[in-house]
Amino acid sequence: MPTNTHSFQAIGLISKRGEPRITLTLQRLLQHLEDLGKNVLLDESTEGLLAGRVLHAREELGKCCDLVIVIGGDGTLLNAGRTLARFKLPIIGINHGRLGFLTDISSHEMIPALNQILQGHFTSEARSLLIAEIWRGKQRIITEDAVNDVVIHNHDVVRMIEFDTYIDQRHVNTQRADGLVVATPTGSTAYALSAGGPLVAPSLDAIMLVPICPHTMSNRPLIISAEARIEIRLHELNRTSAQVAFDGQAMTRLLPGDRVLIQQNTHKLQLLHPADYDHFALLRKKLHWAEAPQENDPSN
Amino acid sequence: MPTNTHSFQAIGLISKRGEPRITLTLQRLLQHLEDLGKNVLLDESTEGLLAGRVLHAREELGKCCDLVIVIGGDGTLLNAGRTLARFKLPIIGINHGRLGFLTDISSHEMIPALNQILQGHFTSEARSLLIAEIWRGKQRIITEDAVNDVVIHNHDVVRMIEFDTYIDQRHVNTQRADGLVVATPTGSTAYALSAGGPLVAPSLDAIMLVPICPHTMSNRPLIISAEARIEIRLHELNRTSAQVAFDGQAMTRLLPGDRVLIQQNTHKLQLLHPADYDHFALLRKKLHWAEAPQENDPSN
Amino acid sequence: MPTNTHSFQAIGLISKRGEPRITLTLQRLLQHLEDLGKNVLLDESTEGLLAGRVLHAREELGKCCDLVIVIGGDGTLLNAGRTLARFKLPIIGINHGRLGFLTDISSHEMIPALNQILQGHFTSEARSLLIAEIWRGKQRIITEDAVNDVVIHNHDVVRMIEFDTYIDQRHVNTQRADGLVVATPTGSTAYALSAGGPLVAPSLDAIMLVPICPHTMSNRPLIISAEARIEIRLHELNRTSAQVAFDGQAMTRLLPGDRVLIQQNTHKLQLLHPADYDHFALLRKKLHWAEAPQENDPSN
Amino acid sequence: MPTNTHSFQAIGLISKRGEPRITLTLQRLLQHLEDLGKNVLLDESTEGLLAGRVLHAREELGKCCDLVIVIGGDGTLLNAGRTLARFKLPIIGINHGRLGFLTDISSHEMIPALNQILQGHFTSEARSLLIAEIWRGKQRIITEDAVNDVVIHNHDVVRMIEFDTYIDQRHVNTQRADGLVVATPTGSTAYALSAGGPLVAPSLDAIMLVPICPHTMSNRPLIISAEARIEIRLHELNRTSAQVAFDGQAMTRLLPGDRVLIQQNTHKLQLLHPADYDHFALLRKKLHWAEAPQENDPSN
Repeated sequence: MPTNTHSFQAIGLISKRGEPRITLTLQRLLQHLEDLGKNVLLDESTEGLLAGRVLHAREELGKCCDLVIVIGGDGTLLNAGRTLARFKLPIIGINHGRLGFLTDISSHEMIPALNQILQGHFTSEARSLLIAEIWRGKQRIITEDAVNDVVIHNHDVVRMIEFDTYIDQRHVNTQRADGLVVATPTGSTAYALSAGGPLVAPSLDAIMLVPICPHTMSNRPLIISAEARIEIRLHELNRTSAQVAFDGQAMTRLLPGDRVLIQQNTHKLQLLHPADYDHFALLRKKLHWAEAPQENDPSN
Repeated sequence: MPTNTHSFQAIGLISKRGEPRITLTLQRLLQHLEDLGKNVLLDESTEGLLAGRVLHAREELGKCCDLVIVIGGDGTLLNAGRTLARFKLPIIGINHGRLGFLTDISSHEMIPALNQILQGHFTSEARSLLIAEIWRGKQRIITEDAVNDVVIHNHDVVRMIEFDTYIDQRHVNTQRADGLVVATPTGSTAYALSAGGPLVAPSLDAIMLVPICPHTMSNRPLIISAEARIEIRLHELNRTSAQVAFDGQAMTRLLPGDRVLIQQNTHKLQLLHPADYDHFALLRKKLHWAEAPQENDPSN
Repeated sequence: MPTNTHSFQAIGLISKRGEPRITLTLQRLLQHLEDLGKNVLLDESTEGLLAGRVLHAREELGKCCDLVIVIGGDGTLLNAGRTLARFKLPIIGINHGRLGFLTDISSHEMIPALNQILQGHFTSEARSLLIAEIWRGKQRIITEDAVNDVVIHNHDVVRMIEFDTYIDQRHVNTQRADGLVVATPTGSTAYALSAGGPLVAPSLDAIMLVPICPHTMSNRPLIISAEARIEIRLHELNRTSAQVAFDGQAMTRLLPGDRVLIQQNTHKLQLLHPADYDHFALLRKKLHWAEAPQENDPSN
Repeated sequence: MPTNTHSFQAIGLISKRGEPRITLTLQRLLQHLEDLGKNVLLDESTEGLLAGRVLHAREELGKCCDLVIVIGGDGTLLNAGRTLARFKLPIIGINHGRLGFLTDISSHEMIPALNQILQGHFTSEARSLLIAEIWRGKQRIITEDAVNDVVIHNHDVVRMIEFDTYIDQRHVNTQRADGLVVATPTGSTAYALSAGGPLVAPSLDAIMLVPICPHTMSNRPLIISAEARIEIRLHELNRTSAQVAFDGQAMTRLLPGDRVLIQQNTHKLQLLHPADYDHFALLRKKLHWAEAPQENDPSN
């Protein structure tokens, strides 16, 4: 069991916004941390859940905390990760309901699990992030981070979009598709999986490009180096409008001719897990790999 | 070679709208048919292509013609088929450019091919169509035909839609996905193919349901009887907006709780092909099945 | 609830061969049926499970019984179905262990379920079968039935096999692949599903052809009419040996140039289910469709 | 254009074995190289193609040459790569017939292409290899290299095999499948592609595990670090026999309980290409990515 000598004193709490069922968990957590003598900062996302407490902007948590605990689902953690990555804070995810890929600690077991982590017994993981820029002509109009994925998608079901993909300024291909998922290994269990992508070990230094409903049947998912610079150029004559989403949360409309540049972020997302954390065990559980065979089975 | 005793006298011409490159083909075709003594009606879609000719509404073609020739691509034929199916007219498709699945006669070979057909040497195919109704509460707000498919799709890339599928009033499943393609066998080579569906022989009396980027990995395409009544119920709490498209052309927004009822149309689309028409030959050509093997191949 | 006026008097019992854990279920079943005054014939497959009972050849069951009950798994029922289909006997499947697609009655609930069926309250289904012939030159060397599928497969992992597919004497394509699954709708939940095929409603009159690891990426599953005559011709120059399996049970080696002819059997397999049988409910249960969403989910 | 100061003096020639059509190409190549004053060693694989020449064992080529040229297809190069990798020789692949993924120089263009390379204008690539050991109990019974893949496969079509996968001694999952492809990025365009795997950039330091017709639908391809140690343990109770193949060429039977250990080889395969070599251009050509769209297309 790994032992680390971190001492977490200022701890930020972020919750799924406006979810009253989380209140009790939040209270228990707050009480426990303050009993341990920790300085606890409540994020604005907890607004309305705990009466009479001062709330802090996300920015402030980033600057003042040395640990952040997220209570909610994977979406809550993605949002926290995207906004806090540049502060290089470790993050712990507590799920409220069903097990998440990122929020792997159940709220029922959070007290002993946190005690272990606060005593320095944990597994630390650095998950890579993406950074994307949208260029319109010579102007960069948006810069945004993503923990899971940058998704370029048509906006109308009526028409596929057409785009060219370049990697390190080399032309890869011209595609007609509903869209393209550019994902981190972390994102390989999210939307990329629904689009038909493979599973990628979180520690692998790679980026994946998964076409969404591609017109050409041989347009398979492509796995490339995390050092690659990816450029997606929407065709000028695209009669349909496109859009881009970051972790399925922030969304921006694209115009014909827009270019989306994507590369690995220099920051990483630091996740803390209980010391016995096992990524494959999580996959087995969430993807039902451990289950008994199920077909109409000639061998029985 | 099949011989039929049809005598086509009133022939409608429909073209891809606003495509000046079609003008010459249209002129040649018109000249040839009038030389043969046929009564030719030009559809409004040919507007601007041939000067000084009377144009007729689609409805009029449906009522007055005993054959319609479509010049353009598969999309032009889909539009013609959807609007003319109830008139039970045979349709011939001439492609302008690349070979289509429905527009299988090249404009370069159209004169001899048409001559053969007009002399009664052809293969006739009855392709099934869908008819869809959108219900909002107790009100039917839209009824629309489709030759290829009825596609229910999310409108925002940000959220999957959630819906229940019923077949003959039996619950099939609850899905979270980008959408669902309900397709005819004809539609199996269109969007359903991009979404991962199988190929279905055009003559098979079946309907296919192909999930688009489904969240649950075991949600495979489903092939059912063409007599089935399909009902898709959008969840009431869908935080995202959805939309429905017919043959990727007509499009309608859906609200949470809307229901889409889909079944086989009582009308069929009657396609005429040259006598030596071969569906599998078309598949081999368009899907590159005839090509030589291509992998990094240990046997060489 | 459907009511049928059948009166089942002579009932055959078939079990998974050599499975001592089935003995108790078999005893309970035998006792119960004899208490009801039924004439019970034990199949040879029950050998060694019940002492002191006369056993009957499968052929005899086929001739003398008016109902057969199978205890075991889907494989046991497939074997029974393949050998009994020509006798047009209804079959009931009782699973011993986990729920099967064909053995849908749990041994724990078998007594009340059987009572209902024996009183005429049941759902009856006619499942289509395949019949395959293997031809070597002008000689037919084997004829065999299949409930699920006829699978042509390479025998050595080292080489793909090459073959031509014909449907109603029309050439479909030339493939290089590990093999080909030709399946009934019943077989769509068996090996065809692992090979990437769609789900096909059991009542649909169709046959599916699913390539196994095809070399050409556009070689998708193909769904055709159940009236089609399918012919698979192994290439003469196949340097690898091939084999063919029926329901994954009977197996035969093929030589280069061999032809496999497959079509729907004139017999059907008649399955009896409890009156409330619901195929989609079975799919939901066995394919985990009812389960909660599972991804790293931005909406949480 | 990269310039290298290599001076290749002793050049080995390997050909597809027993292919008389290669004789002329081989003669031209030999003549050209000897005209340039090179010392040419003919591999035993050229036996029967060139009369009156001394032939050399593969081992001798490995020890004496500073460059090897392979004439044939990708399979010929895989064989050469597997047997020569430990000698750290650069290899050039000339295809005889259709373009290969590894044999990317056409025999029609070989003289100018080779001249450029021999003058030091080339692109050099280090492709990773696998090394696999088969263990039976405490005994290692085979050690073998692979350029593309190590494939574990059932031997009978009748039964799937069951096995456990471990990565760095952590349990990944228990699978029932036709088999498993463990492939290098180079192998991602070979058998792994037919089994449904993604494309992996040749330079990415990764290994892929692609299940073949897995029983559990959520068993997707898995991409992991090239530093991982993979262990596949066949179940003791496997009623079917399994086999393992290296690059689809060498093959070995496995027994129940056998373990296959796979990891990246310390040697790399050094491929030389013309200076303008472009991997994506090769993919576009061989996977038909550059082709025009092909569906029944509503937009036409």
